[in-house]
Amino acid sequence: MPNVAIVGATGAVGQEFLKILAERNFPVDELRLLATKRSAGKKINWQGREIEVEETTHQSFKNIDIALFAGGSSSTEFAEAAVNSGAVVIDNSSAFRLNPEVPLVVPEVNPEDVKWHKGIIANPNCSTIIANVALKPIYDLAGIKRIVVSTYQAVSGAGREGIEELEAQIHAIANGGEIVSQAFPYQIASNLIPRIDVFGEGDYTKEEWKMVKETRKIFHVPDMAITATTVRVPVFRSHSESINIETERKVSVAEVKAVLSKAAGVKVIDDPTQDKYPMPLYTSDTDEVYIGRIREDFSIANGLNIWVVGDQIRKGAATNAVQIAELLLKK
Amino acid sequence: MPNVAIVGATGAVGQEFLKILAERNFPVDELRLLATKRSAGKKINWQGREIEVEETTHQSFKNIDIALFAGGSSSTEFAEAAVNSGAVVIDNSSAFRLNPEVPLVVPEVNPEDVKWHKGIIANPNCSTIIANVALKPIYDLAGIKRIVVSTYQAVSGAGREGIEELEAQIHAIANGGEIVSQAFPYQIASNLIPRIDVFGEGDYTKEEWKMVKETRKIFHVPDMAITATTVRVPVFRSHSESINIETERKVSVAEVKAVLSKAAGVKVIDDPTQDKYPMPLYTSDTDEVYIGRIREDFSIANGLNIWVVGDQIRKGAATNAVQIAELLLKK
Repeated sequence: MPNVAIVGATGAVGQEFLKILAERNFPVDELRLLATKRSAGKKINWQGREIEVEETTHQSFKNIDIALFAGGSSSTEFAEAAVNSGAVVIDNSSAFRLNPEVPLVVPEVNPEDVKWHKGIIANPNCSTIIANVALKPIYDLAGIKRIVVSTYQAVSGAGREGIEELEAQIHAIANGGEIVSQAFPYQIASNLIPRIDVFGEGDYTKEEWKMVKETRKIFHVPDMAITATTVRVPVFRSHSESINIETERKVSVAEVKAVLSKAAGVKVIDDPTQDKYPMPLYTSDTDEVYIGRIREDFSIANGLNIWVVGDQIRKGAATNAVQIAELLLKK
Repeated sequence: MPNVAIVGATGAVGQEFLKILAERNFPVDELRLLATKRSAGKKINWQGREIEVEETTHQSFKNIDIALFAGGSSSTEFAEAAVNSGAVVIDNSSAFRLNPEVPLVVPEVNPEDVKWHKGIIANPNCSTIIANVALKPIYDLAGIKRIVVSTYQAVSGAGREGIEELEAQIHAIANGGEIVSQAFPYQIASNLIPRIDVFGEGDYTKEEWKMVKETRKIFHVPDMAITATTVRVPVFRSHSESINIETERKVSVAEVKAVLSKAAGVKVIDDPTQDKYPMPLYTSDTDEVYIGRIREDFSIANGLNIWVVGDQIRKGAATNAVQIAELLLKK
């Protein structure tokens, strides 16, 4: 059984790693929990074991087989040390995702890319994972010519601080009190912020470029036509996306529904007669990517609209990374 | 000076009519406030006058020149009676919008259509108004080949009940207590509901069809290529829209910004270096349509992305109707 380290074990994604390793009965010999100095010494119970959180150092990875990095700056600081110690790093940060030497993997889309790793495998951006799981069956069915995405992203994308900030602001709105904005640049409760991550080329945000460039890499289609507008919404955990797709080949909505219904990692919730469609409140804390509002887009010859929702911390981060680790074990 | 009636005077849009008539110094001789039996007898102060709310009946419109209908079922019940009494009806409901005998007017887009009315002028759907004010200058500059819209619509679209329901749910989340959903089919606080109005043809909602069909009518382009996904978000008053536009002619972002900056009813807020973009919390209770995140869409030859925000009760309803009334007076 592998020895596993979790870097960033006390954060929102790190905590989810612990839950998901247990839920999926991932085989673990030693489990090492690493975090910043501030969290060192904290004791965490996992599967009947009491484990003390240690400060991450370059020496932390001795005898570790798989190191799950939850994200943030620890990846650039410690991933190389982990690889040099002989661990395979599965990294949830954006540091290595577009590095041509590093596979970027969504197990439902490109599991084969795990094979050529050189020590690091990157876990894609949360919105990208959720969109790509939904797009893959449609890509295989009909080809994809162009994608236009507008996202509705939960505060969990900003980690524990994001969740706590929305909670505090909701409390302040209900009971009076000062609205404090630190995790986000403006109040997020009862508001929308159409900017996630920093601005970059063409006035796109980094989050928008991640969706474009990571999707191209995952699908191995370097010139895939895709544009994105990413928006933070006052929702706690699940990301939602309105995706407009132009397919290469004309397909019916019935064909798309049939293919999605059988697809790995996907759950179709689409019954207008029963008022059923995916919503972030009810999909949180689950692993599937939920798809509904599947409609023909009558404005072009081969158009589709879909509405996609997935838990940002689970399939958008921790679950996808643990699935990658499972692929490694199979290999 | 005209005698003016407001039908639905005690609702969210009706109350806004009162504010906007005062703010814009709309000339009013007699002001008659009409509502359902339940609100009759209520006294409302307006510009130093104390006016008693009366129950709307078929006899309510004697000597009325302009009747502003706030929306809902009163339009089908009483609009004809108002016209027969000699009033011009400006109607915020969806009852007459697609009637070929009735002009559908956004003053910044098609003011000339006011001229051919036969007693009723329809006020478009709120999301349609906000989108169309933003689209018109781009249409004039470069032509529009196709539009893909995803909306982020405030609870005010469901009237006073929608606003009160979100307030109550926020209170329940903060302090514990039961979440009650009556105005919306599911909890809206900390959630998104990707269904507004009832489902119709092709599994589009009526709200989505309104955006498609009303935009075509307002622009006099019966085959305009447009598709929409409309989503309710936990925001109080302003609607936001992510709009992807394919223009006929290639234009630069600089040209688009220049034209939008001078356009009637529009305010451009678009400065990534200062983290400035439109947000619904900060645009509420104003009349402009705010546009930001203006970017080239690199996925097609002539593509643009814009982010549009406008107060649903004001420009999306009451202000637009009062502007139509102003056009009538000019005539």
